[in-house]
Amino acid sequence: MCATETAARVCKCSLTSDIASQPRSNGTTVNLSSDSVVNLDHGDPTMFESYWRKMGDKCTVVISGCQSLSYFSDMGNFCWFLEPALADAIKRLHRVVGNAVLEDRHLVVGTGSTQLYQAALYALSPPDEPNPTSVVSAVPYYSSYVEVTEYLRSGLYKWAGDARSFDKDGPYIELVTSPNNPDGVIRQPVVKRVSKSTGHAGSRIGWALVKDEGVARKMSKFIELNTIGVSKESQIRAAMIIGAISDGYKQFGTTDSEEQHYFFEYGQSLMAKRWEKLRAVVKSTGIFSLPEYPQEYCLFSAEFTEAHPAFAWLKCNDDIEDGQSFLREHKILTRSGRQFWS
Amino acid sequence: MCATETAARVCKCSLTSDIASQPRSNGTTVNLSSDSVVNLDHGDPTMFESYWRKMGDKCTVVISGCQSLSYFSDMGNFCWFLEPALADAIKRLHRVVGNAVLEDRHLVVGTGSTQLYQAALYALSPPDEPNPTSVVSAVPYYSSYVEVTEYLRSGLYKWAGDARSFDKDGPYIELVTSPNNPDGVIRQPVVKRVSKSTGHAGSRIGWALVKDEGVARKMSKFIELNTIGVSKESQIRAAMIIGAISDGYKQFGTTDSEEQHYFFEYGQSLMAKRWEKLRAVVKSTGIFSLPEYPQEYCLFSAEFTEAHPAFAWLKCNDDIEDGQSFLREHKILTRSGRQFWS
Repeated sequence: MCATETAARVCKCSLTSDIASQPRSNGTTVNLSSDSVVNLDHGDPTMFESYWRKMGDKCTVVISGCQSLSYFSDMGNFCWFLEPALADAIKRLHRVVGNAVLEDRHLVVGTGSTQLYQAALYALSPPDEPNPTSVVSAVPYYSSYVEVTEYLRSGLYKWAGDARSFDKDGPYIELVTSPNNPDGVIRQPVVKRVSKSTGHAGSRIGWALVKDEGVARKMSKFIELNTIGVSKESQIRAAMIIGAISDGYKQFGTTDSEEQHYFFEYGQSLMAKRWEKLRAVVKSTGIFSLPEYPQEYCLFSAEFTEAHPAFAWLKCNDDIEDGQSFLREHKILTRSGRQFWS
Repeated sequence: MCATETAARVCKCSLTSDIASQPRSNGTTVNLSSDSVVNLDHGDPTMFESYWRKMGDKCTVVISGCQSLSYFSDMGNFCWFLEPALADAIKRLHRVVGNAVLEDRHLVVGTGSTQLYQAALYALSPPDEPNPTSVVSAVPYYSSYVEVTEYLRSGLYKWAGDARSFDKDGPYIELVTSPNNPDGVIRQPVVKRVSKSTGHAGSRIGWALVKDEGVARKMSKFIELNTIGVSKESQIRAAMIIGAISDGYKQFGTTDSEEQHYFFEYGQSLMAKRWEKLRAVVKSTGIFSLPEYPQEYCLFSAEFTEAHPAFAWLKCNDDIEDGQSFLREHKILTRSGRQFWS
């Protein structure tokens, strides 16, 4: 079977939305009825709203009209638009979770990870090459990477497809996403974390921990040229939200604390329930299959646990030629595997 | 005298900062002493802080932790990341001021006007041309335009210099800024207004009123690809700030109201005082000159008034070869005219 046929049989279903909470301009949200289409094409982490509602006023941010007018957040830092309170909150979170090296690293804030990805391409592409630097990633890769790399037809970099079949000479950039989007496979450690980790997708906050100072400076320069910094309001709120998550772990392990206060346990438990339901439904149909994720030791929770990705990489059996079309007929919108191969 | 010699004799001095309010990471601000350098190289509208302080809690924004998680702000709009409350506040402000056509126009929000400028280049460049579309502007033009147009070496568009000497065939984009940056000259009406108009530069909010729906859709697509929308926190706060300005004009013209509550009058009066001082100093030196702005009828204030731009386009006499270097020796940082000609 060729790659195209395989790709058509898989589709990606996002699992993080609360379907009925999509906002409309008249102030109402979508009502589900028997005619409704269930849209799993894109992820939108509204499932975390319930967690933040329970936190009440603890994470309410108050910003006065005379606050934060300046372009600048930290004149002494080459990333002059990074709010010091956000930098502190991010470093503290990484210390609590233990998932990143912080020493001798440079922190760059961006308008979401999409902007940081473009900043990294700009920073890593040699400026003096006659041809654009090739950007590759192993299939299946996140469907937007191709378009985000190509839309400005940059002379600095260009998309060059599957990393496994790449055999050109000259400089190249390999993009590694882990857990991989769309199939949830652990590929390699990465340095980026995004605002979606707390559910606040609309804030457009992402950050990168960068080893090389020259690269970090060029990434900051990109963000300066692209958007002259990053929203201060979003940074101030993100500092508070991330701080609250770390605060929640102060009493971690003591007997009188409820699991609900631990953000990562809450998220994991919610996702585990969704995966349990999904696996039961998929099994009962007999025509789909889902990836199996091995039990792996988690250094943070100190337990063996399996992955529950934010999206399901759903494969149809050989009787179905095109998974996306098949599910579309049943009023479920998904993203075809073809989009992760192109 | 050649253009290069003229350019070296002028420099741009920004007039909107409160010099002593530049933030540092240790929480302090810059202290001015006899050794201090006065940095007028870039504008930073902190002079409006005093206005917003007077407004007190009227413009304090409160956002709870469970609010605005979704990527989406308005699913029914092609600019799906535009907060309806901000759209309403912007339209209301333009109605109050009377400076823009709103009917049959499409509103696109961006992460500041810099992002909207790039979105416009993306939207206006024909996608199927073999060569990049030329981008031109009449000298002197804003010093960042060249770099922002060129940094990604796009195959869609490229900087082609002075509009007055442009004589190539094929499609081109002419950039018109009015009042022009750096010399403050009224050039032509433009459709863009930026967050700096309220002083909140750090919020990174700008908007465009676009006549052609296809162009507006492509601009929205650019912002989707570039940063997946615009910070919701900034939009919510901008809606409140802009709303407060319009509210202030509800009782405009009644006898018992203080001028201080009218934002545009406040800003104009502050700038008029700064220009008065500056003109007096410049005159006393005998070696500099400033542009003269004609009295023009303002439809908004219904008065004849002269312009007081946010920056001064300062010209030295023939005894000084390089204005920027001369002022640098006197501990004043400015931006050389050369940067607006290149």
